[in-house]
Amino acid sequence: MTASSPAASASPAPRRRGRPPRGGETAADAPATRDRILTAARETFAQHGYDKASVRAIARRAGVDPALVHHYFGTKEQVFEAAVAEAAAPVLDGANVIPEGDPHHIGERLTRFFFGVWENPASREPLLAIVRSVVTHETAAGIFRRFITRNLVRRVAERLDVPDIESRIELAVAQLVGVAILRYVVRVEPLASAEAETLIRRLAPVVQFHISGGAAPLGPR
Amino acid sequence: MTASSPAASASPAPRRRGRPPRGGETAADAPATRDRILTAARETFAQHGYDKASVRAIARRAGVDPALVHHYFGTKEQVFEAAVAEAAAPVLDGANVIPEGDPHHIGERLTRFFFGVWENPASREPLLAIVRSVVTHETAAGIFRRFITRNLVRRVAERLDVPDIESRIELAVAQLVGVAILRYVVRVEPLASAEAETLIRRLAPVVQFHISGGAAPLGPR
Repeated sequence: MTASSPAASASPAPRRRGRPPRGGETAADAPATRDRILTAARETFAQHGYDKASVRAIARRAGVDPALVHHYFGTKEQVFEAAVAEAAAPVLDGANVIPEGDPHHIGERLTRFFFGVWENPASREPLLAIVRSVVTHETAAGIFRRFITRNLVRRVAERLDVPDIESRIELAVAQLVGVAILRYVVRVEPLASAEAETLIRRLAPVVQFHISGGAAPLGPR
Repeated sequence: MTASSPAASASPAPRRRGRPPRGGETAADAPATRDRILTAARETFAQHGYDKASVRAIARRAGVDPALVHHYFGTKEQVFEAAVAEAAAPVLDGANVIPEGDPHHIGERLTRFFFGVWENPASREPLLAIVRSVVTHETAAGIFRRFITRNLVRRVAERLDVPDIESRIELAVAQLVGVAILRYVVRVEPLASAEAETLIRRLAPVVQFHISGGAAPLGPR
């Protein structure tokens, strides 16, 4: 893996080498390097969008040779997929927990979890980067579509015995995605400044209603 | 208004004149020219996003001089605002009708109206263009934010006597916006292929619940 590998010179743009990997690449460095590339990928996709983000730019930001990005992740699509997986990891951990416990409170657990992830700037930023790429680029949308179907909707659905559960989960997720767009992206008032706890109290019964098919009580709170 | 007005030469890019306005600019042509520029603006914002869309590119697509775009609309921000207003016009017409009639069916009217706009490719395309620009560009988000607050939320809110009605309407709109994102942008299944009528039946009670504060019955349908 050298700076002059063919993968590094595929682009017709003038060559600019990244800083060499700090301390060289050894087996012990690999996880740190991989993480550094992922962080750089997330920042690059966030700043420039999927279209304009190049493997070369990601490598430059990570301070590694572009060939190393290809080595760890493959194509730009695969780098994006890995960045989505990394940003979504806390969501997926939550998705595992959500179906456990009292099924009448699954709506509250999902809603509370969702706000936990979005209210925390450290997890919000990567999610915003994904939202921007997914909305503007069909390839990114396709990656995201396969990802949430396989990893989120099916994993929650297979633990719940409710007819038509996949579309029910998607309508519940749509409620939360719409709140994320209006509160964190568009920042429309008064929604953007509302207390998270107030919103959780309003949204949890709706999420519950979608998922449990109206079986749970859905009154004013 | 000539091809060599100062506004047309503000950009340092090499000059490329658009085709001259068809048949010259007379008072009778003005509405058609304005419409042609708006259509070109919408297509240009949709294709390139807010950032990369230039007044020059919009003018070229419309077959007019860039100075004419400035003449009718002003800055790029103002062109975008006009494109938002045009794409949102059917939504706003609906917003006027929504608060009329039985307040227990306002959720169904809003939901049905929303699907009417999004299911029709002619009105869906401009809305998709707005979504893409708003999500990726802060200026566009700001324009959109002011626009929906002034024109949609307040206009519906002032006709309804419910406490905290603005945030209630926003949560209802968030449910519908999230469905639009997952169904028409990300196209996640089974939501993307579901019958609109099925979704309206599922969503109308939720929209009603948000707006009427749980006062209306919200049971399974």
